[in-house]
Amino acid sequence: MLKAPIRILGIDPGLRRTGWGLIESDGNRLIHVACGSVETSERATLGERLVAIHDGLIRIIETYAPHEAAVEQTFVNANGASTLKLGQARGVAMLVPARAGLSVAEYAPNVVKKTVVGAGHGDKAQIRMMIGVLLPKASPQSDDAADALAIAVCHAHHRGSVVMAAKLKVAAR
Amino acid sequence: MLKAPIRILGIDPGLRRTGWGLIESDGNRLIHVACGSVETSERATLGERLVAIHDGLIRIIETYAPHEAAVEQTFVNANGASTLKLGQARGVAMLVPARAGLSVAEYAPNVVKKTVVGAGHGDKAQIRMMIGVLLPKASPQSDDAADALAIAVCHAHHRGSVVMAAKLKVAAR
Repeated sequence: MLKAPIRILGIDPGLRRTGWGLIESDGNRLIHVACGSVETSERATLGERLVAIHDGLIRIIETYAPHEAAVEQTFVNANGASTLKLGQARGVAMLVPARAGLSVAEYAPNVVKKTVVGAGHGDKAQIRMMIGVLLPKASPQSDDAADALAIAVCHAHHRGSVVMAAKLKVAAR
Repeated sequence: MLKAPIRILGIDPGLRRTGWGLIESDGNRLIHVACGSVETSERATLGERLVAIHDGLIRIIETYAPHEAAVEQTFVNANGASTLKLGQARGVAMLVPARAGLSVAEYAPNVVKKTVVGAGHGDKAQIRMMIGVLLPKASPQSDDAADALAIAVCHAHHRGSVVMAAKLKVAAR
């Protein structure tokens, strides 16, 4: 059976910069489509910044029509205020693809790193290097965009089992 | 000069239950309009739950056409995972009124309690009792709805200075 390529949107949420990366996964082949980041002004109100993230992601989904989305699981750290900020951006980053009818998978940072770099504690430079190897046509302009591509690549590798798990969950109801 | 009453939407965000309360503030008079809570299923995915909060709040804004919104500032506690959950719900709760063009004020829990109860550490029962005194026609069915009404009342009391502060901020640009 011939299967059409799956277009995946990876999102690395952040209140100041939300990275996004689009790839196509066709069997074992990965193709870079586009990447970038949605930036918000620190002088804007929180409401305005969340609207900017929302509208930026809507535009990307309308432009590239991805089939599935994947978002990095936020690292919960000791600083509650940072966790809250990130949580607010992440809420919007998950809302937009979900409202557009896309499935939204979540991956822990160490799973993303392990999938892309081969170790659970790769640094930003290693991720960028491996993105260059896996997606030679990509030239992400920021760490956030590179991370978003890494999340999309991670989903391309794991989505088979996720799709199966979702089917099993539905079947078990 | 005759001023029209201002309709205020108070929101107490939460992933499981987001309380909302609508009041009208007409000079010194406060009038209860409606209140309730948007509930989400723990069996749904995070994306689905955020969509439910989003769609619920959109419906309330469309039905009651508030002029301004106020959201409780989230209490950042030691449990990072709870802070993150609340942050995600709060991001959506702030996004919806902001996208609808409403100003969205934020108040710390102790400011809300101090305004409504007269002390910064009133408990849930005291807030419900004072809501009954301030808004005799309100009969909130949950603590979340009562808290949301308290946030709206808090904004009715403080909005003069907030509006002035916003004007000063614009003038200073």
